[in-house]
Amino acid sequence: MPSAVVLVSGGLDSAVTLALAIAEGFEPFVLSFEYGQRHHIEIKSARRVANSMRVADHRVAQIDLRVFGGSALTDEIAVPRERSEAEMGDGIPITYVPARNTIFLSYAMAWAEVLGTGDIFIGINAVDYSGYPDCRPEFLRAFESLASVATKAGVGGARLKIHAPLINLSKSDIIRKGTDLGVDFGLTHSCYDPAPDGAACSVCDSCQLRLKGFREAGLVDPIRYAK
Amino acid sequence: MPSAVVLVSGGLDSAVTLALAIAEGFEPFVLSFEYGQRHHIEIKSARRVANSMRVADHRVAQIDLRVFGGSALTDEIAVPRERSEAEMGDGIPITYVPARNTIFLSYAMAWAEVLGTGDIFIGINAVDYSGYPDCRPEFLRAFESLASVATKAGVGGARLKIHAPLINLSKSDIIRKGTDLGVDFGLTHSCYDPAPDGAACSVCDSCQLRLKGFREAGLVDPIRYAK
Repeated sequence: MPSAVVLVSGGLDSAVTLALAIAEGFEPFVLSFEYGQRHHIEIKSARRVANSMRVADHRVAQIDLRVFGGSALTDEIAVPRERSEAEMGDGIPITYVPARNTIFLSYAMAWAEVLGTGDIFIGINAVDYSGYPDCRPEFLRAFESLASVATKAGVGGARLKIHAPLINLSKSDIIRKGTDLGVDFGLTHSCYDPAPDGAACSVCDSCQLRLKGFREAGLVDPIRYAK
Repeated sequence: MPSAVVLVSGGLDSAVTLALAIAEGFEPFVLSFEYGQRHHIEIKSARRVANSMRVADHRVAQIDLRVFGGSALTDEIAVPRERSEAEMGDGIPITYVPARNTIFLSYAMAWAEVLGTGDIFIGINAVDYSGYPDCRPEFLRAFESLASVATKAGVGGARLKIHAPLINLSKSDIIRKGTDLGVDFGLTHSCYDPAPDGAACSVCDSCQLRLKGFREAGLVDPIRYAK
């Protein structure tokens, strides 16, 4: 059974990505990141998601993405609320964290090298997050090229493959696929700005995309919303 | 005066790199990393080095490179001592930290994007560390390519340039250059395995390369050695 490093944030997309990695026959080594102040609750969800599936290991790397500021997800900038889809799709959102996926994949590459595997799964999506430069296929191909010269394994001729099985799927397709694979969406977390008790706000971009996805899939979102 | 992100570890090479960035007319934004258990003393040196030159800012990112193990610098693996040059040059050393420079450059790229600059300085060297895949020019070029698709700035057409002015210099050349630029080497730290009081061990690969460099440059190393 080949092993793979799977990035799991605690969100809906990465939960489906983990289920897909398992369905494809990989033994998953799950990697999550704790960073910034807003998303502490994500780590709880990541642990619940990993525990709900057959994973070989789960590591949480403490990393500091607040050191430079520059994003509503790590800084004190307010998260935008109740924006229309047109507004969401307009340019690069302020929830963009500079170089975030590059940093995440660098860690995944480090662990892959230690494990001796060349497969990494990441739940990025180019449909909902069209404004994020590091959610596009050309970014993933450039990272694979970098890996071929950046590591012992790469220099030795091994190729790193970054699997992004959700990259071109709509949110409703992702939800349908996860439902087919038995993903418990009640364990996942998407809100950028949850209430102190963990309830999702329902009005940030992430909640809106999630709720619309469930509506379009004809399913009910099992998580709790503040309103 | 253009700004640049300069990676400073507290070691001799990065101190010279910082002096070179200033000599080339850049306003330096200094970035250091605190990781693993062995190198806490490096941060003190990095602060002293940055304080000794005209820098615009100095940030220290707390990052976790111990989470996967795999290196004598972050793990409990013993640092090799009293090896011959032939042994040092043989293959990839166990002090290699998987993906370290990729992770460091990812952070530098994040800060460069926030600052709106396209210049990063890194003191890597392909002569002394010929066994490290991520100390070679092809690695730097691959990272620059990645940057062109990974960031808002890159997508907007800005090019990231990674300056590695020491990449082909011998240790004695680096020491001579630093001396010409007025670098205070007494503030720097190189030892992989210092004594509790901070004295360098003199026998790890890093101490041996440093001492040989000073000998060949005809200069005396001002730091304290345990023996």
